[in-house]
Amino acid sequence: MAETVASLGERALIARLRSRLAPDPPHIRLGIGDDAAVLEPERGMQIVVTTDSLVEDVHFRRAWTPAAAIGHKALAVNLSDLAAMGATPRASLLSLGLPATLPIAEFDALIDGYATLSAATRTPLVGGNIARSPGPLLIDVTAIGSVRPRRVLRRTGARAGDELYVTGAPGRSAAGLALLAAGIPRDAMDADERECLVWHERPEPRLRLGRIVARTSAATAAMDLSDGLADAAATLAAEAGVGVVLDEAAVPIARGVSRVAGRIGGRSALEIAIGGGEDYELAFVVPARRRSRFLAAVRRSGDVTVTRVGVFERGHGAWLETGSGRRPLPHGFAHF
Amino acid sequence: MAETVASLGERALIARLRSRLAPDPPHIRLGIGDDAAVLEPERGMQIVVTTDSLVEDVHFRRAWTPAAAIGHKALAVNLSDLAAMGATPRASLLSLGLPATLPIAEFDALIDGYATLSAATRTPLVGGNIARSPGPLLIDVTAIGSVRPRRVLRRTGARAGDELYVTGAPGRSAAGLALLAAGIPRDAMDADERECLVWHERPEPRLRLGRIVARTSAATAAMDLSDGLADAAATLAAEAGVGVVLDEAAVPIARGVSRVAGRIGGRSALEIAIGGGEDYELAFVVPARRRSRFLAAVRRSGDVTVTRVGVFERGHGAWLETGSGRRPLPHGFAHF
Repeated sequence: MAETVASLGERALIARLRSRLAPDPPHIRLGIGDDAAVLEPERGMQIVVTTDSLVEDVHFRRAWTPAAAIGHKALAVNLSDLAAMGATPRASLLSLGLPATLPIAEFDALIDGYATLSAATRTPLVGGNIARSPGPLLIDVTAIGSVRPRRVLRRTGARAGDELYVTGAPGRSAAGLALLAAGIPRDAMDADERECLVWHERPEPRLRLGRIVARTSAATAAMDLSDGLADAAATLAAEAGVGVVLDEAAVPIARGVSRVAGRIGGRSALEIAIGGGEDYELAFVVPARRRSRFLAAVRRSGDVTVTRVGVFERGHGAWLETGSGRRPLPHGFAHF
Repeated sequence: MAETVASLGERALIARLRSRLAPDPPHIRLGIGDDAAVLEPERGMQIVVTTDSLVEDVHFRRAWTPAAAIGHKALAVNLSDLAAMGATPRASLLSLGLPATLPIAEFDALIDGYATLSAATRTPLVGGNIARSPGPLLIDVTAIGSVRPRRVLRRTGARAGDELYVTGAPGRSAAGLALLAAGIPRDAMDADERECLVWHERPEPRLRLGRIVARTSAATAAMDLSDGLADAAATLAAEAGVGVVLDEAAVPIARGVSRVAGRIGGRSALEIAIGGGEDYELAFVVPARRRSRFLAAVRRSGDVTVTRVGVFERGHGAWLETGSGRRPLPHGFAHF
């Protein structure tokens, strides 16, 4: 039988975790091991904080998702919130609830998945705690970032006439999840489907794009697609007291999303693309006169694609413009 | 049947939560409701962060502890970590995992317990998330504070000859828990026992004392007693590469602790006082030449009592000095 975390205890697990992390950068004045961590603030910057959790059998299943992907995703969903504010990550905290039967190899893989993304995004893990869980594996992460005052990307800001842009191709995460739920083995997926699965398991937070857009004031509002594109469009409109119309023909559909819709059925590719959650793409509100500035920011940020998918208008409500007229935008994804 | 949280959903629960909170103070530039919160840093101060969780059936039982006390304690244990650093709280984040069957009245009570301590300690709740839990009630809190550079109270700092002080009377929380575990009804407890129960359910973080001691450099190290006095003494010694001797006769024993030891048996009052965890008292390392400065800080901080319970010495190990000689200090409390 595999050795489990119960055989080690909290202190040995923390020592094990620390040994798998990169050394702290200089702005971390005190890292793991005291009552709390101490960070040096960046002069003239505001502090941005967010927390999000992954609960076994609600947000993931251990039988479906490798532990390293769970560790990656727990940090990624928080970094996506920082990206949506235009913030730069500075540190993170990790709170784990571990079932006594969790094999140590899974603990190690989870930490390694977290540590790899932590190193790649310069988000050192500076503290946290490890408790026993009577049932599910619990992972709660807090991410701390910094942003220049008056550059933060809030959700409020859309005005009638402004355009809605989205990064990447939404719905890939939901398509990947549908493949897992249908019990399709990884080696029976084609390359497009596998891309959806990767996007479900290892979303890449759009940190660089969010930061450049914020610094250059190239958008007036933003949020991430954790609850799907339809939800983001409707939220950005409602927060600003305006309406929004999504153009059905403009919504980008990844090949994998189409293929999953055809293979599994029940939902069209468009429904997956606008209703699927957990994408961790970003939605931006861009006034027409800032369009060229926004597209310049996108070019500077590397290989992220963006698509104009809708427009804000006077009034209220969220609508889908189809070839045969307008209908209410279907509701998005609900985590709860 | 009582209405449950499942009938509301995440957004309605968040709206309900917000309606029960005090308004945000000015340093909160953006509170609950966006992808992340934004805080104004205090000029010249460092940022202190900590996270700690309460998991149902590991840290509390819903049948034993009122929901308002659970909400209070979830924040208090984090504030105690800030107190142990000498930090001043600035904000908190709350991540909840709710069983679908949780009555809305319990949700409200939990939030009210949190909100009352949040208002009393000026620790505004600025963000978080609410997820479904497949089993236990989960509460994860992150607290953010500030501290003046070079004034932070670390765990490292003890030198041979320094004295160990503890606030209050340790073991009261463990005695309160023992009363609950023994099934003794609240109305069958005397006033001293009830005081132990209050200390178990609603610990008061020693924020004011921690802050004054840090500002006046009246101690060279500190930590909180979340894992008990023996654990704190041994940790403060080991972190500094010295030994420590606790004086059995000096350890303060609350009347309630003695009474519980007599009534329930199995552990002496001294064992409860040095081994019991979850007290959220503070332990301070005080060099003899700073003793008067430390005692002045204690007087300024109000009605907190402190007791000198031990001394650090050359060498290593943690010892208990008894009337009949020295023996190794028993191990403390383990959360995991």
